[in-house]
Amino acid sequence: MPSHNQYKQSRSLFERAAAVIPGGIYGHTTPANMVPGEMPYFAERGSGCRYWDVDGNSYLDYMCGYGPIVLGHVHPEIEEAAERQRRDGDCFNHPTARMVELAERFTGLVDFADWAVFGKNGSDMTSWAVQVAREHTRRKKLLMVRGAYHGTHAWCTPGKGGLLPEDRAHIITFEWNDAASFESAVKIAGDDFAAVIVTPYHHPLYTENLLPAPSFMQTIEASWHKRGAVLILDDIRAGFRLDLAGSHRAFGFTPDLACYCKALGNGHPISATAGRASLKAAAGRVFLTGSYWNGAVAMAAAMKNLEILERDQVPAHLEKMGRLLADGLVSAAERHGWKITMSGPPAIPFLTFNGERYFYQNQAFSVEMAKRGVFFHPHHNWFLCAAHGPEEIAETLVAADEAFASMKAVTQESAAA
Amino acid sequence: MPSHNQYKQSRSLFERAAAVIPGGIYGHTTPANMVPGEMPYFAERGSGCRYWDVDGNSYLDYMCGYGPIVLGHVHPEIEEAAERQRRDGDCFNHPTARMVELAERFTGLVDFADWAVFGKNGSDMTSWAVQVAREHTRRKKLLMVRGAYHGTHAWCTPGKGGLLPEDRAHIITFEWNDAASFESAVKIAGDDFAAVIVTPYHHPLYTENLLPAPSFMQTIEASWHKRGAVLILDDIRAGFRLDLAGSHRAFGFTPDLACYCKALGNGHPISATAGRASLKAAAGRVFLTGSYWNGAVAMAAAMKNLEILERDQVPAHLEKMGRLLADGLVSAAERHGWKITMSGPPAIPFLTFNGERYFYQNQAFSVEMAKRGVFFHPHHNWFLCAAHGPEEIAETLVAADEAFASMKAVTQESAAA
Repeated sequence: MPSHNQYKQSRSLFERAAAVIPGGIYGHTTPANMVPGEMPYFAERGSGCRYWDVDGNSYLDYMCGYGPIVLGHVHPEIEEAAERQRRDGDCFNHPTARMVELAERFTGLVDFADWAVFGKNGSDMTSWAVQVAREHTRRKKLLMVRGAYHGTHAWCTPGKGGLLPEDRAHIITFEWNDAASFESAVKIAGDDFAAVIVTPYHHPLYTENLLPAPSFMQTIEASWHKRGAVLILDDIRAGFRLDLAGSHRAFGFTPDLACYCKALGNGHPISATAGRASLKAAAGRVFLTGSYWNGAVAMAAAMKNLEILERDQVPAHLEKMGRLLADGLVSAAERHGWKITMSGPPAIPFLTFNGERYFYQNQAFSVEMAKRGVFFHPHHNWFLCAAHGPEEIAETLVAADEAFASMKAVTQESAAA
Repeated sequence: MPSHNQYKQSRSLFERAAAVIPGGIYGHTTPANMVPGEMPYFAERGSGCRYWDVDGNSYLDYMCGYGPIVLGHVHPEIEEAAERQRRDGDCFNHPTARMVELAERFTGLVDFADWAVFGKNGSDMTSWAVQVAREHTRRKKLLMVRGAYHGTHAWCTPGKGGLLPEDRAHIITFEWNDAASFESAVKIAGDDFAAVIVTPYHHPLYTENLLPAPSFMQTIEASWHKRGAVLILDDIRAGFRLDLAGSHRAFGFTPDLACYCKALGNGHPISATAGRASLKAAAGRVFLTGSYWNGAVAMAAAMKNLEILERDQVPAHLEKMGRLLADGLVSAAERHGWKITMSGPPAIPFLTFNGERYFYQNQAFSVEMAKRGVFFHPHHNWFLCAAHGPEEIAETLVAADEAFASMKAVTQESAAA
């Protein structure tokens, strides 16, 4: 039974937005990426793993702000740490001791990291890491997986507007999980092979998420070692949800540089790059900065967040809850005659309907779940957070049972009509 | 008489930093940009227009975090507005109403703005604005002033590390305040002239700051109108300190796109681009986003900040205090036999010693001022904030009198030695 399906305030606020903002809402949270008209557009408030939209509808939150919320919205310990720093100030002519403390904790946690730098966006970090790799190797060619998302800068944006042909100079793409395709890209790069950038597993929009095939990452690792190129891990989406030592640990390889963002500050704006000692000199020669990058509040929040992730062994909890959710969804689907696949790591899962090409069933399912107070994205992987417990998963599965049933009903009605 | 000159904690913290961060402190706040060993490296806390370093030394703050602090550190009204939002949450699957309210207020304030978008860094905005201009015109050539700072992205970074020759493709530089140089750049761009990006006045490091010569901006304005190119104003450093309608108002021209950052959120991380209606469709076609860009806390802070800037007519106050400071510094210098020039707008002033090429006197003066509890940057323009009042300016001028005297003494001693 739908508990709510009104998005009146969302729609009226969107009209106001469209008058003063190109597209009304831009970027990854644009309604065009979800199911326009059938899902909320604007959030009002959050608490733990729930949030409320501007129409007063509440949702169990399985997107967690597209990743940053790893402990829960408005987490008391994080906010207390942030508030303590805030009373002293945030943005100064110098960094504060928070930067040093965070770099020490961060490099203590990420197993291969000898040093770290901090920024505000994931894109800041991937672009800088590529520059560091080129500076270190004095070579130009960058290998990347076709369809991988590494941010919004011109060299990697999924957008098409305003680009130059030169923006993609020296970039060679290869296919995920295809060692032959990778080797052929390496051949093309030849002596000018500077770096390869990969996500720890493949998580583009509008597809099943794909874990690395056995030995795929090790093929890459061996090749780049042999040729003196730099392996850059884009751990922005998965970092600290799978393994606190870095997501590479979960898949048995080691990068030279790795970029983090989403789960680093529980929503406080901060991103990071970690690197090996051998890259430190080159890193020091590639300028990076931003007006707010020394911001002490986000650093204090990140410190506390890393502390809690370790203390509460959050990745293990996320995996457990993720398995509960995935198994329950598959069973619920089966009960109503649907075959679905849960892909990606359990902590960052994604649902696809088997044999579905255009995601209509994903969209219908997400709409039915939203009506029942659960926010699932139809096209983008989901995120669990520490506040998701067995009760919330059970509540989700009750809603899913109804949603799958209602979809079946709709399909039968359509067939009968 | 020096009240403090110990930077022991700064130095020991820097040693810890250097172990885990390339260069110890990177970016614009690196000690290498100031006077290493003779000025503080790390901040501890701030309040109004004062801050304390990690050694307990206090400073009248004339850098204001390199600009973001426009009302004062830990401003009670800003922090109250931020706290109100923070209780409801910050980072969601959607924007909040704060984004719409801020876009409405922002476009109501910036006189030519029909729309706005928000980001986290200035560089996010200048790079995106250039893309929007290219998308709108379907042309490639970008004209920029030689030596102007527009951020850290590859096309404009002052750094040298890790760049590709292609990063500067289609960029043509011209000289500030040189109409002939501009016209010659326009000729080179020819039919492919997409955009010109300028700061409202010229404020590179290590030079006097230069206001636009009479008619220089109007020459640019006329040329780009005639040729259908886009005029991008990089108002990141000056925006909202000179004129709340945008710094172009202070110099009598109107851009098509303008980028803001520093004084927008009183230290809360937020940047913006404003544009004309004619550019809105193109803007909607150039992808932009970041993990924290919907962050409601920074938007709530920016809303309140813009409200206070208007209510308290802050730009007029900054100009008045800036004039008091500049006149007082020139007099104090003269009293001790120094000839200095105060350049740039009074609200964002810079001091240079006449005829000095290597900034040794600027460095000596900044060191003497730091000892006396006033933070002036020897190489980068300064920033005033609303918390600077006549008493603080008077306190500064007493310190300056001593500093100029002490420099003279040193010089005479050196000469005698």
